[in-house]
Amino acid sequence: MRNTKARRDLSIFVLVMLTLVVSTAGAQTVRYVPKHDELKYTFGGHKPVLSVKPGTTLESWTEDCYDGRVKSPTDVPSKIILANHDNPQTGPFYVDGADPGDVLAVHILKLEPALSYGISSSFPNFGALNATDYTAMLHEALPEKVWWYDIDKTRGTVKFKALKGDFSTDIPMRPFLGCLGVAPARGETRWTVTPEAFGGNMDCPEVREGNTVYLPVNVTGALLYFGDGHLVQGDGEIIGTAVEAALNVRLKVDVIKGRTIAWPRIESDSELMTMGSYRPLEDAYRIAHRGMVDWLVADYGFDMMDAYQLLSQVGTAQIAQVVDPNYTVLARFPKKLLPAKAVFGGAHDKLKGGKNKVG
Amino acid sequence: MRNTKARRDLSIFVLVMLTLVVSTAGAQTVRYVPKHDELKYTFGGHKPVLSVKPGTTLESWTEDCYDGRVKSPTDVPSKIILANHDNPQTGPFYVDGADPGDVLAVHILKLEPALSYGISSSFPNFGALNATDYTAMLHEALPEKVWWYDIDKTRGTVKFKALKGDFSTDIPMRPFLGCLGVAPARGETRWTVTPEAFGGNMDCPEVREGNTVYLPVNVTGALLYFGDGHLVQGDGEIIGTAVEAALNVRLKVDVIKGRTIAWPRIESDSELMTMGSYRPLEDAYRIAHRGMVDWLVADYGFDMMDAYQLLSQVGTAQIAQVVDPNYTVLARFPKKLLPAKAVFGGAHDKLKGGKNKVG
Amino acid sequence: MRNTKARRDLSIFVLVMLTLVVSTAGAQTVRYVPKHDELKYTFGGHKPVLSVKPGTTLESWTEDCYDGRVKSPTDVPSKIILANHDNPQTGPFYVDGADPGDVLAVHILKLEPALSYGISSSFPNFGALNATDYTAMLHEALPEKVWWYDIDKTRGTVKFKALKGDFSTDIPMRPFLGCLGVAPARGETRWTVTPEAFGGNMDCPEVREGNTVYLPVNVTGALLYFGDGHLVQGDGEIIGTAVEAALNVRLKVDVIKGRTIAWPRIESDSELMTMGSYRPLEDAYRIAHRGMVDWLVADYGFDMMDAYQLLSQVGTAQIAQVVDPNYTVLARFPKKLLPAKAVFGGAHDKLKGGKNKVG
Amino acid sequence: MRNTKARRDLSIFVLVMLTLVVSTAGAQTVRYVPKHDELKYTFGGHKPVLSVKPGTTLESWTEDCYDGRVKSPTDVPSKIILANHDNPQTGPFYVDGADPGDVLAVHILKLEPALSYGISSSFPNFGALNATDYTAMLHEALPEKVWWYDIDKTRGTVKFKALKGDFSTDIPMRPFLGCLGVAPARGETRWTVTPEAFGGNMDCPEVREGNTVYLPVNVTGALLYFGDGHLVQGDGEIIGTAVEAALNVRLKVDVIKGRTIAWPRIESDSELMTMGSYRPLEDAYRIAHRGMVDWLVADYGFDMMDAYQLLSQVGTAQIAQVVDPNYTVLARFPKKLLPAKAVFGGAHDKLKGGKNKVG
Repeated sequence: MRNTKARRDLSIFVLVMLTLVVSTAGAQTVRYVPKHDELKYTFGGHKPVLSVKPGTTLESWTEDCYDGRVKSPTDVPSKIILANHDNPQTGPFYVDGADPGDVLAVHILKLEPALSYGISSSFPNFGALNATDYTAMLHEALPEKVWWYDIDKTRGTVKFKALKGDFSTDIPMRPFLGCLGVAPARGETRWTVTPEAFGGNMDCPEVREGNTVYLPVNVTGALLYFGDGHLVQGDGEIIGTAVEAALNVRLKVDVIKGRTIAWPRIESDSELMTMGSYRPLEDAYRIAHRGMVDWLVADYGFDMMDAYQLLSQVGTAQIAQVVDPNYTVLARFPKKLLPAKAVFGGAHDKLKGGKNKVG
Repeated sequence: MRNTKARRDLSIFVLVMLTLVVSTAGAQTVRYVPKHDELKYTFGGHKPVLSVKPGTTLESWTEDCYDGRVKSPTDVPSKIILANHDNPQTGPFYVDGADPGDVLAVHILKLEPALSYGISSSFPNFGALNATDYTAMLHEALPEKVWWYDIDKTRGTVKFKALKGDFSTDIPMRPFLGCLGVAPARGETRWTVTPEAFGGNMDCPEVREGNTVYLPVNVTGALLYFGDGHLVQGDGEIIGTAVEAALNVRLKVDVIKGRTIAWPRIESDSELMTMGSYRPLEDAYRIAHRGMVDWLVADYGFDMMDAYQLLSQVGTAQIAQVVDPNYTVLARFPKKLLPAKAVFGGAHDKLKGGKNKVG
Repeated sequence: MRNTKARRDLSIFVLVMLTLVVSTAGAQTVRYVPKHDELKYTFGGHKPVLSVKPGTTLESWTEDCYDGRVKSPTDVPSKIILANHDNPQTGPFYVDGADPGDVLAVHILKLEPALSYGISSSFPNFGALNATDYTAMLHEALPEKVWWYDIDKTRGTVKFKALKGDFSTDIPMRPFLGCLGVAPARGETRWTVTPEAFGGNMDCPEVREGNTVYLPVNVTGALLYFGDGHLVQGDGEIIGTAVEAALNVRLKVDVIKGRTIAWPRIESDSELMTMGSYRPLEDAYRIAHRGMVDWLVADYGFDMMDAYQLLSQVGTAQIAQVVDPNYTVLARFPKKLLPAKAVFGGAHDKLKGGKNKVG
Repeated sequence: MRNTKARRDLSIFVLVMLTLVVSTAGAQTVRYVPKHDELKYTFGGHKPVLSVKPGTTLESWTEDCYDGRVKSPTDVPSKIILANHDNPQTGPFYVDGADPGDVLAVHILKLEPALSYGISSSFPNFGALNATDYTAMLHEALPEKVWWYDIDKTRGTVKFKALKGDFSTDIPMRPFLGCLGVAPARGETRWTVTPEAFGGNMDCPEVREGNTVYLPVNVTGALLYFGDGHLVQGDGEIIGTAVEAALNVRLKVDVIKGRTIAWPRIESDSELMTMGSYRPLEDAYRIAHRGMVDWLVADYGFDMMDAYQLLSQVGTAQIAQVVDPNYTVLARFPKKLLPAKAVFGGAHDKLKGGKNKVG
């Protein structure tokens, strides 16, 4: 009787036109590059573009947050982007065997800039030091401006050039996906600018090559989306945009049965990370840190108060962004201070290893 | 190319089975009472149950927030309600001629308890003085309890009876709709516990008999939902529920062309009211009061700073609720201090007057 | 060893120069009108100007928030007021027998405008819809403007006159003290723009004639201050100032032994009220409502969950202000729904009654 | 006419009893170790213990946050510490030539644990994942527990030992001062648990050996306090305490004329850092980042929008703590991306260099 029921049946319509399947000793590599009119502007509410098995490597691409419409430094984003066409998403991908209550593991094998430049801009009524639609004030909007960043692939940098004066500086690239998410719970569909329990526009620099992101599964097949390529971003993304770019993307997905998580988690070789995306910022912080205490208790057998104490001394906290409809905080814990133990059935090591390991 | 397109075409499927149309000198009264499996659990994402013309009076009914499952004081809501079946909605109703950018006016002609009792309860991890999923802490949850309120229709009261001790007191009823909303913008569908720019679960006592609610139209036909009947509620709804009850509902709808609003507004005989629903609470406050300044400037010709000043001296502010995914604040301005002038084309007077005037 | 120790000894220096003591059948009336250089600019940190017995009526006066420097509509407050001379306070008054942990009761017998006008103004970087020093943004400040309100004593109104255009309207006066507080706990002294647990700049319209304010006593003698006369103010004081005015003030004080409160409370003939002053606004809300639950439990014998439930249905909440260094929320509960019972030893009735009753 | 005036005259009472002055080629080293009854429990409100010249090296010591009362793992802090004796401070020190509007530079030469252990504990109603006096709820308090950390000086670690189970792990020490501040502005004195514009209990890991902290000067002589030694702390100090310890402290102070700052700043060899301490957490974030934009504009000649953009891509943000009366966020900017340029007259290099350079 819920509207999610209809969606669960949609996997039978899976599109396979652009798909190249390479079977290699039981593991699969699937290639899917969306045409522009296949891009999505919500998390949830769509038929999957493709169905993939756990263990599949997905080779794909994602458009930049400007829907690919900003093509020169003189284009004005707020005028040139179609209404509600921010953060176009690639997907969704239906993952076989993913049921509500499971965990979807997404390992990021490779992220590379697809073009020769990145773009950043201010937007009227958006940003951490601007009045916004939500932090509503009576001031005139700050000006809308575009910064064009040329990529130096050899050095792995982008060049910041001041709009006033002739200062420039090279910034090392650290590409990541601003958006990675699944269909939300409760039959919701959410704007692609929003992060929440389903992931989404977390704008979190740790959604990067080499890391594994764990997402709650809310609907059959999980329905994975990604987009909003970032070449580099500071903590908080204060002006409202990172150095935005289309990216070539290589991911590997897996399903973890028998575990349930409330909010996204990330695992790197050296850290456990838990995420909270809400307002005010202290609630995002609380969600993330409550998640880490829960993780330490459930997987490492800590007493709750011991976990609270240890996290208080060795945890780090990263403010991913304070500009989106919810703010995102990441709690981080160093693995080296914990007993050697694989979490989520060793999904991180399994996904990064073997044939598909990043060169 | 947006998923909203499909929805806009759905009006051709309008259900008319339960509809009684009474044409009276050009005005219409339509009756629609949903069967249980016609109730909705999101704002947005559904085919309309009915198409109505501007000026139509709608006679209807809405279930209580417990999906009608709590039938005795010993039922435990969190165990007995199906997952995500909170706040079931009646609707949606397609309003002819309502286009994105228009304003939908909903005048509430009548709200009456449909049964002989109301119910309130605490929920684990929900409420203003509880740790919640968002204000996440390490405490054990407060207990879940149910208070049963018998209605005295003659006196117009409900009776509070303490669970411990024998104290009881009679509380005057002031029925209102906890939920009134339209399909959200940007192709979103939202859980029926959420209030935002589209209205929704505002839990605002001014959504009551005699008042007119103005809502932004985001999709063709607006798609009006309502539900979550409240017999009485304090400011803030601190325990997470009002005295909840199924209600008989009589509404009259109209469409205002050529005006656009960002957030809901309410008009009573004596007040202009503007709403904000977000977190933190000061942002809900800011949205509401920015909305009121905008209204005074646009409809009464005030200079912005004069409006800001006058509102600062004569405005009142009501905290509707601080328990839902967004918090709701209402800014209120007394009409008597303003020049006599009809706003929104005199919609409030027009809708409350004439043949359909509440007896 | 604490710096508060020194202060406790200061009562021996009590100034009596401007004091007129009228003994009437055991009750006292004391008159104290400060000279300008006796005004205070912090809560805490001063020798008392006067020592009074419980039961004493105090006739006094307080300057406006502009330190009396704005004398015409063309004066620019931010340029003409000496640094940190906002909200000058009358006092402090040492109340005999008030010890840390006691409650000071202050009944407001009379508040009358001392001059023929009130003043309101915007300030740069101050106000609910402005970027401020705390909600720091990159916008240019909103303009500083002064509105001059003439008082019509016969009608009991002040006249708002728009600065642009010729609109004017009469607003009924409801005078109150923006500031009422005692020396803070923990040896703190606080800027007179700040409200907190000690009271202070609560900007709460219920600190008005006929009501009794209960304040925690933190130091021997309590050290009572008041100031910041307001002729009328909307909820939130959004532009940062009410209609500000010097007031003639008549108060009566009492000490309640054997009771301790954490935050200010107010009692009127019809309501119990509890206050919270903090940020974010939801924490001010939580403090106030936690205080009300505590009050109902302690004085009326409610079970905590019953108190939480009943308050949820019948409580009202007033946002006093959202512009000061802490925001202030008032939780309100109607006495008529409670068993007839005097709280705080019947202090409210005792203080308002008898010879000193307001004529 | 302000109460600060009296304090400004107090320098004549400077205590010199415990002072050893070593003059070395024009530079001075002064040693001051407070007796217990010389410790201070507010920022502001005291006579200086010592007067020092700019360029002076101060050798000193500070007690732990427990006022030195917790001497074994079975001591219960909330019962054993005298009321309001948290975070005892060493000082204040009067710095010759420091006038209101100047900047005080404090370079930290050396911080070493004074004892063989550190202590951490939970407190009732305190901590990021607890209901508190401000985030007031109805839950029972979490338990109060003490963790005892033995120091391994050779390895530079402290040992965490779980209270339940036998898990232990070694944590590298990174000592810093939880408190560093000056007398507040506006005649305020503040509890030593509070951080604000004057510095104070910022609980910021960057107030560490090798870094220079810049503080606004609010009163003549600045009146420098420090205390609350921390051996190591995670971001946020979520349980409410770091690994707390008495520290031996070596500082060097300087006065920068002709510059004014609103909030503390920090300079390391590699970074510029700006601080904000307020609530909600997003306002602390905004203050810190507004401060960094201001710094880049003032000292490096950036256009405001260019500074906003560049900071958005390369800035990092650290949440120092989310447990104190105000929350603290640090904005960080890498110097290597900026033109080589000394800020504040090269104070950082000057203070760390020369004769007093850390061994």
